[in-house]
Amino acid sequence: MKKHNFNPGPSILPQYTIDETVKAIQNFSNTDLSLLEVSHRSKEFDAVMDETKALFKELLTVPEGYGVAFVGGGASTQFFHIPYNFLAKKAAYVNTGEWASRAIKEAKVFGEVDVIASSEDKNFSYIPKGYTIPKDADYLHLTSNNTIFGTELLEDINSPIPLISDMSSDIFSRPLDVSKYAMIYGGAQKNLAPAGLTFVIVREDFLGKAPRPLPTMVDYRTHIKNNSMYNTPPCVVVYSALMTLRWLKNLGGVAAMEKRNIEKANLLYSEIDRNKLFRGTVAKEDRSRMNVCFVMASGSEQLEEEFLNFAKGKALVGLKGHRSVGGFRASLYNALPLESVQLLVDTMKEFEAAH
Amino acid sequence: MKKHNFNPGPSILPQYTIDETVKAIQNFSNTDLSLLEVSHRSKEFDAVMDETKALFKELLTVPEGYGVAFVGGGASTQFFHIPYNFLAKKAAYVNTGEWASRAIKEAKVFGEVDVIASSEDKNFSYIPKGYTIPKDADYLHLTSNNTIFGTELLEDINSPIPLISDMSSDIFSRPLDVSKYAMIYGGAQKNLAPAGLTFVIVREDFLGKAPRPLPTMVDYRTHIKNNSMYNTPPCVVVYSALMTLRWLKNLGGVAAMEKRNIEKANLLYSEIDRNKLFRGTVAKEDRSRMNVCFVMASGSEQLEEEFLNFAKGKALVGLKGHRSVGGFRASLYNALPLESVQLLVDTMKEFEAAH
Repeated sequence: MKKHNFNPGPSILPQYTIDETVKAIQNFSNTDLSLLEVSHRSKEFDAVMDETKALFKELLTVPEGYGVAFVGGGASTQFFHIPYNFLAKKAAYVNTGEWASRAIKEAKVFGEVDVIASSEDKNFSYIPKGYTIPKDADYLHLTSNNTIFGTELLEDINSPIPLISDMSSDIFSRPLDVSKYAMIYGGAQKNLAPAGLTFVIVREDFLGKAPRPLPTMVDYRTHIKNNSMYNTPPCVVVYSALMTLRWLKNLGGVAAMEKRNIEKANLLYSEIDRNKLFRGTVAKEDRSRMNVCFVMASGSEQLEEEFLNFAKGKALVGLKGHRSVGGFRASLYNALPLESVQLLVDTMKEFEAAH
Repeated sequence: MKKHNFNPGPSILPQYTIDETVKAIQNFSNTDLSLLEVSHRSKEFDAVMDETKALFKELLTVPEGYGVAFVGGGASTQFFHIPYNFLAKKAAYVNTGEWASRAIKEAKVFGEVDVIASSEDKNFSYIPKGYTIPKDADYLHLTSNNTIFGTELLEDINSPIPLISDMSSDIFSRPLDVSKYAMIYGGAQKNLAPAGLTFVIVREDFLGKAPRPLPTMVDYRTHIKNNSMYNTPPCVVVYSALMTLRWLKNLGGVAAMEKRNIEKANLLYSEIDRNKLFRGTVAKEDRSRMNVCFVMASGSEQLEEEFLNFAKGKALVGLKGHRSVGGFRASLYNALPLESVQLLVDTMKEFEAAH
């Protein structure tokens, strides 16, 4: 039975990515070797890395002067690599939830952290606005999409100091103005690939000024200079990422994807707002297109488990909300088809009719 | 045409690992989801992580009091995590080649490094012996197998100070006395899995005494305490590793593997010593069972390219030596069958007869 995969991450990937990864594991690029056992120094894998980087730049319209690197590990690794590279005296962070909090925690190991805004007062159900960015901080760190709490910053803000954004869960979901950022980074396991890869887009003139000696792997210049092959890259994950980028390009790129994502999000949020059994948990203007958080409406709380099981019976999986919010979370990443959202909406209607 | 894969890494893996990884990417553990898109918090993936850790401990006879963790990235990441955790004043390193040198370079970022022995004087063609381990160093770091230069330390030495060994390229190739080590670590991409995963075996009482504040991801306790799931693990690579461990167990474990590896290495080294066209580059007592380095004998240097092409014609691939040594390198990792080595030997004989 075909499942409708609403998992928050690792999460649904295009069937094309899955099929092509399988083919390459059986026979990579006509080498008669498996992608699992091919040298990253082979010309065939070099071509994979080159195309991945080129498509990454093309699809996000990365301007001149920016380097793109793929490194092992996850965004959690970057939480400390960022202050290691850039925090001399003080860094500014906006706290929008679990992942922002983790980033703040790691920055504190390296220096002073000014949490200039936070939505913790309302369980991270909104994106703070109207804060003042301190001009004397080394950088401002944001988390553009908050997977657990379902909020998203859909704007590329102006910052008087270098702007760094963790876009793990919304990269490639909309066009970006990369020039507004000093650095964009994220784990691959939402809109790009299986887990085990992190992407980094960084303005090259922001590098080389680290306030402390850097281990080679921490210095972003290492990875940019060596075409992400200073050490052995996670070849399978890079290959899957390339397949997703090819799929994305064929569908019309990030502008087309944004259109699809708006349509999917509107469909589901409209039903949440209409259906008397459910309610959204996030300030309307800050609702995420990627992770839709909702709970049972007041008076219907006891139906939560029943709805989850009802949805499961319709092959809708991964809908359980994070324990910090409870209820439900439907992750609508790029690869999730509109049909899956429609089925969820129909299921909510059917559940309402039955109660 | 079936290839005989002598690549140094990423390198040959058991066909079982390849086949089972493909099946899981098509349908993971009867979830009707792909391994590429399944939640690492699912009970099915939990079971994968638990079994991987349990088999790791069982096959290497890891004693009580040791933690085993799997982390993203590669051994290069550990080159700086190790001094970050353990280097208070001074660390002792033995320099046996490229990877040891890189580990030394990273340690120097954190404190004094005493290179107590080196084989650099003879292009790393032997393993230094008879050195004195300084009792006042925080730890001694070794590289047990040197993939580029083809030397291997086949003994678990006694050390008066905590012993740390990079076993990236010979883990699971022979039984180990883990109790001799404070820590063993390595990248997965030789005897275990595709690239993108590092294993760490560490004595728990060696932890928690870091001389500086540790970022969460650098502190090994994070990964041990959280069953290697503090952050999203590289699920596909972990799954492939599990398949290799199952394969290894079915074949009789590391003792049986050592027997096979000795047989393969003896077969090839005997031919190198017998064949007038070739010569080994490594001191006989330090020859690696994993990476066999050899060159054209004196007077036959001009045949190097011709031999590589001749071997390629027999479907023997990945034999080109690293530029630091030149000539040839045949990597005989666990998954390489004896038949591949026999074919290489036959090819060397045939080449000799033709010249």
